[in-house]
Parts: sequence; structure tokens; C-alpha cells
Amino acid sequence: MSYRVEIKVMPHKELLDPQGKAVLGGLSNLGLQSVSDVRVGKNITLLVEAPSVDQAEAIAREAAEKLLSNPVMEYFEVHAEKA
Amino acid sequence: MSYRVEIKVMPHKELLDPQGKAVLGGLSNLGLQSVSDVRVGKNITLLVEAPSVDQAEAIAREAAEKLLSNPVMEYFEVHAEKA
Repeated sequence: MSYRVEIKVMPHKELLDPQGKAVLGGLSNLGLQSVSDVRVGKNITLLVEAPSVDQAEAIAREAAEKLLSNPVMEYFEVHAEKA
Repeated sequence: MSYRVEIKVMPHKELLDPQGKAVLGGLSNLGLQSVSDVRVGKNITLLVEAPSVDQAEAIAREAAEKLLSNPVMEYFEVHAEKA
């Protein structure tokens, strides 16, 4: 069965996020003053062939650990649903 | 009231996604053959001060249109919840 798995990779909350700071500055220049904190990460969607939703998530987790995230600077969340 | 708004920016489905193709090649080299399609986008979280969830989403949508996405190549989705 095919599953569409979303992997969200975000910078750790304790770390400074320079890209987020840059976006915050840009938004403030555009007049969007009500935004006070910005964090920028990646969103990766995979189409995974697996016998169950749990196994699809396990494959995505392995992909995130081995290739898509840097555990020193980032954490990730995985969410799968039927494609 | 404070709202945490997530903006997901992804490449249009009709367009080739070279970064996704590269990730797919990397996953295949790692032995993850059950992954067949990869798309890579951005995930941006904003902390927005607004009187209602609808207005928080409207501010985030404005941020996405003016700064965070390129409508020629990307589409975006916005989702807000109480911070």
C-alpha cells in the first residue's frame, strides 16, 4: 500500500535560527509588526510503499535520521497517511 | 492573543523538484528502495499576535505571499493554532 509521509525538520528550539531572524527582519520591513518569532525548517514529503502505516513511518524516520536531518541542530516529526 | 502559525511552502506538483530527485537518489543509495517520490519544501513557523485565529492566518498568508513563497514555482498552506 502507498503512504504519503510528511517529514518536518526544524531547528532545535534552544538554538538561534539565523534564517528565521532574517525573515523576521523582512516581515518587519513589510509592515507585519505583529509577528514576533520566526523559525525556518524543511518539509519533505515521501511516497512510501509499505504494508502498514507504522512501517511507512518507520521508513520515513530512517530516511530522516540517515539523510534528511542533522540531529545536532535539528529535530524532526513524521506523519503518514494513505496516499 | 498569540497564535503559532505554520506555513508549508512546497514546489507545485506539475514542476520537477531537483532537490527531491537528489534526495530520492540518496535514499536509494542508502537501501531505502520503497520510497518512490520525494518533494522538498519549506516549513516556517510564526508567532503572531492577533485578535482571532482567522486574522492570525490572514497575517501569515500575507507574509507567505509577499516574502516566503514564489507563486511561479511554489504553493503554500497555512495553519494556525493557539500558542
